[in-house]
Amino acid sequence: MSGNEIENLIKQVSKLPGLGSRSARRIVLHLLSKKENALLPLIDNLQEVAANIKTCEICGNFDTSSPCSVCASAVRDGKTLCVVQDVADLWAMERVAQFKGKYHVLGGILSALDGVVPEDLNIDGLLRRIVREEVREVILALPATVDGQITSHYLSARLKENGVSVSTLAQGIPMGAELDYMDEGTLQLALSSRKAL
Amino acid sequence: MSGNEIENLIKQVSKLPGLGSRSARRIVLHLLSKKENALLPLIDNLQEVAANIKTCEICGNFDTSSPCSVCASAVRDGKTLCVVQDVADLWAMERVAQFKGKYHVLGGILSALDGVVPEDLNIDGLLRRIVREEVREVILALPATVDGQITSHYLSARLKENGVSVSTLAQGIPMGAELDYMDEGTLQLALSSRKAL
Repeated sequence: MSGNEIENLIKQVSKLPGLGSRSARRIVLHLLSKKENALLPLIDNLQEVAANIKTCEICGNFDTSSPCSVCASAVRDGKTLCVVQDVADLWAMERVAQFKGKYHVLGGILSALDGVVPEDLNIDGLLRRIVREEVREVILALPATVDGQITSHYLSARLKENGVSVSTLAQGIPMGAELDYMDEGTLQLALSSRKAL
Repeated sequence: MSGNEIENLIKQVSKLPGLGSRSARRIVLHLLSKKENALLPLIDNLQEVAANIKTCEICGNFDTSSPCSVCASAVRDGKTLCVVQDVADLWAMERVAQFKGKYHVLGGILSALDGVVPEDLNIDGLLRRIVREEVREVILALPATVDGQITSHYLSARLKENGVSVSTLAQGIPMGAELDYMDEGTLQLALSSRKAL
């Protein structure tokens, strides 16, 4: 039905996150039918990114320069660091465009199940930055899971030894949520963390 | 937050069928974090396909050779043609692996709304094939929409002038469907086309 190269490409595209064999086939057919307007420009762009992409030596962000544009920014407050699990979370925080400090990408979170220990994460780098950049506040923006909380507690203890103030993102009911769709854990937490009006 | 090249790539990926800005960002982050194992092999594969992809001069299929592997096959019955709207439908039919004839890709269907007239479709090519390849049967596998049916009726009239027998795919209730989830049009059609047991 089609050449081996096409089948290989479909298989490869189907392994990208969020895609399956059906959506991959659709994407590849789209690229094949629009070679000049879709396939070739995509190849150019991928090549350009592959040639220019760097991991920021300071925070771990992806950018075309290292230090990245956030770390190199003169207007951002280097005394406040936001610690995130990965670059996806860094970009999510940046989309809010509210945080004016800088970031530190851990590269994962502690996990007994997956055998992730502190040495696997970029924690030493974080502690060195705390001292070198005279950081005063660290905001832990880690996942609201058991592993995320364990990581936050571990980091909090290590950071407080260095005299920085540590906070985490607030937990509770997300905006626009219906109460009867929320899980019990979230409702319990939201109740026990209730705020006076 | 990230280089212009990365933003361009995300924008381009988000225009692929079935993707949006969120899924595109996820895919690009995956590619960036696995440059050696995902990004570079994908570029290689896309380039290989771009260099080798051809549109079959006979049926309109995409393949790395022209005539395509279906048209070039010695074991397939060239006297039976299946007419499809596009290559995606050709591949869908091939996945069933039941049809042993050859194909003809129309490149669309007639549409008053979109201004698609017979001259826009590969109908002359079909009629020439009928004569040249001494085709005896044509199966119209066009969409079960109003435009698809209009196209089927038009093609049927033109083909019968050439003395070939014409059929279309059966319509009715799809396999595994619950009756109370089916639309009324399908139920009406299934009732009026009922088959004796």
